[in-house]
Amino acid sequence: MKIKYELIKNYKKARLGKLKTNYGTFDTPIFMPVGTLANVKTLTPEELYDMHSAVILSNTYHLWLRPGEDIVDKAGGLHKFMNYNGPILTDSGGFQVFSLAKKKDITEEGVIFKSHIDGKKLFLTPELSIQIQNKLDSDIAMSFDECIPYPASYEYAKASTERTIRWAKRGKEVHNNPNQSLFGIIQGGEYQDLREYSAKETVKLDFDGYSIGGTSVGEDKVTMYNMIDYAIKYLPIDKPRYLMGVGEPIDLLEGVERGVDMFDCVLPTRLARHGNAFTRKGRINLKNLKYKEDFTPIEDNCDCYTCKNYTKAYIRHLITCDEMLGGRLLSIHNIRFLIKEMEEIRESIKNDTFDEYKEQFIKQYKNSD
Amino acid sequence: MKIKYELIKNYKKARLGKLKTNYGTFDTPIFMPVGTLANVKTLTPEELYDMHSAVILSNTYHLWLRPGEDIVDKAGGLHKFMNYNGPILTDSGGFQVFSLAKKKDITEEGVIFKSHIDGKKLFLTPELSIQIQNKLDSDIAMSFDECIPYPASYEYAKASTERTIRWAKRGKEVHNNPNQSLFGIIQGGEYQDLREYSAKETVKLDFDGYSIGGTSVGEDKVTMYNMIDYAIKYLPIDKPRYLMGVGEPIDLLEGVERGVDMFDCVLPTRLARHGNAFTRKGRINLKNLKYKEDFTPIEDNCDCYTCKNYTKAYIRHLITCDEMLGGRLLSIHNIRFLIKEMEEIRESIKNDTFDEYKEQFIKQYKNSD
Repeated sequence: MKIKYELIKNYKKARLGKLKTNYGTFDTPIFMPVGTLANVKTLTPEELYDMHSAVILSNTYHLWLRPGEDIVDKAGGLHKFMNYNGPILTDSGGFQVFSLAKKKDITEEGVIFKSHIDGKKLFLTPELSIQIQNKLDSDIAMSFDECIPYPASYEYAKASTERTIRWAKRGKEVHNNPNQSLFGIIQGGEYQDLREYSAKETVKLDFDGYSIGGTSVGEDKVTMYNMIDYAIKYLPIDKPRYLMGVGEPIDLLEGVERGVDMFDCVLPTRLARHGNAFTRKGRINLKNLKYKEDFTPIEDNCDCYTCKNYTKAYIRHLITCDEMLGGRLLSIHNIRFLIKEMEEIRESIKNDTFDEYKEQFIKQYKNSD
Repeated sequence: MKIKYELIKNYKKARLGKLKTNYGTFDTPIFMPVGTLANVKTLTPEELYDMHSAVILSNTYHLWLRPGEDIVDKAGGLHKFMNYNGPILTDSGGFQVFSLAKKKDITEEGVIFKSHIDGKKLFLTPELSIQIQNKLDSDIAMSFDECIPYPASYEYAKASTERTIRWAKRGKEVHNNPNQSLFGIIQGGEYQDLREYSAKETVKLDFDGYSIGGTSVGEDKVTMYNMIDYAIKYLPIDKPRYLMGVGEPIDLLEGVERGVDMFDCVLPTRLARHGNAFTRKGRINLKNLKYKEDFTPIEDNCDCYTCKNYTKAYIRHLITCDEMLGGRLLSIHNIRFLIKEMEEIRESIKNDTFDEYKEQFIKQYKNSD
């Protein structure tokens, strides 16, 4: 079965919706934790269920290299391989080619680049990306795209955007997993007309949903928000919209306000491994000496396992000693933080109080120490 | 309250017993997972409860350095600090001085050595070790001892053994935590008469239990088993006996056969971090290529969380990619393996089938691939 999106209500451009998948129905807008290598770093599926994580993202490029899509296929697909019973979205590898490969040769056919693991020459094409994702058997697959660097010349961005549309078409033609939905990805760099062009042309190909790509590549916030605005008005209201790689607490609010339904980001787990925690008053770094004798939880009102059971002093101790449990406890808190924020955002759309919620959240968050 | 040991029954020298502590009563013989830095690496207390781990060990030397016993004291003791509601045993630091310090200066007063973290000069005395443990508020503390290297000259071993007895006496005199029991440690190196002397003199000081130390320092198995035999016959039957740092599956059987009640070892978690798993047929290394497409659990009949939910192929993938979840899943399996072995050992003592159980276990274990 393909996914089914139902728009429940709008508050201005913000959308409250439902997404039905083969692994359960969840409410949108939603934040998706990242499970790059078929696991959300340090965590089990049960821990994700416990924090009400409804859907995760996994990375096609990484799974292609290790363990290889054929192993995952033989295991019965990604859900069975990692023993995860919720919906899984896979990206296309386009972003990893951009972010991990130091040198790459982009042709009409695909991208030649070197493995970030052993330097082996790799060739990824729109067809191969889809074929890998078909085998991974994720619930939602992404079209292969080029993530345009920022800044990029208009000429470069235009040629790349046009090619990404041709790639999307080629990928769609070989896609053949009836239980997997396929999203098109909007590119266009920072250019308004290219974003409009990309949105319109991609929508013509009739995908199950639409992603906004090419953000979080070094651009400033205003540019990022513009990239969303330029494209989103051309997307159909009956399909989910996914803003790729964005997970800062305030960016989630800005995205939702503009009509985004889905977000993913490695930020909560990456910050955790470096000893950082989200709080409503901003990020804190648990390595800070001032937490040495702080026997209170990261946040008093947080309902996560970590805050219900451990103090800042204990987590600081674990992080200081490089004990993995520290990163694990912070990952639980940070992911739950973003999921809880999204729960509250959905509630505020429902109650027509999104603007107040956003204002209040930002005011408090910027009071960070 | 101090611990209370009750001997339920003997099967030859093997003992089935009960140990009552402030944090619950457990059956002996027992295996204790090691939580060096106030956590069993990668695991939460709940995971330890789930695998029926009844008691853990934590390291005084490590906690003295980080976070420092005063922080733990201010947190309300080690149980509160790490949010663990089972009994905790702390060692004395003697073994770490032996194993971690490259240069040390042992005097009658104590040991001068350098921190393994920053090279800072440290001075640990029998009194200080006990005072630190008093503050950590573990349920069972250890006397400060010198762990004699193997091999050691008779003269060295004799002088050291005599000094360890004087240290035990000094430590006992300053011990002042009414909720904490204190064990004496038998040393004597590989020498029968010194082990006998150490046991008799330590017992004269009337501790709440007795540890056999100075094993697992490079000696062969026969020597290790002799070290137990030489001492254990002089220990009172109404006090628990603890063999320090021993956790190989077959060594547990050999120890129990000789009358040991308690064991600890970092082996299950250390092996896990290197991709190794215990099985009834011997250790296996999950990094081995032959597990790449092995979609069966580590052990079919294992009741641990890992074996009930994950395949060797998946764990191999995690370990190969340095994903921490791999070490976590293997830690769960390996600790549960030893705890389950001890459950079966206790059952066999109860049923007078220990000899058959041991023979069967060893026969199968040595068939390892």
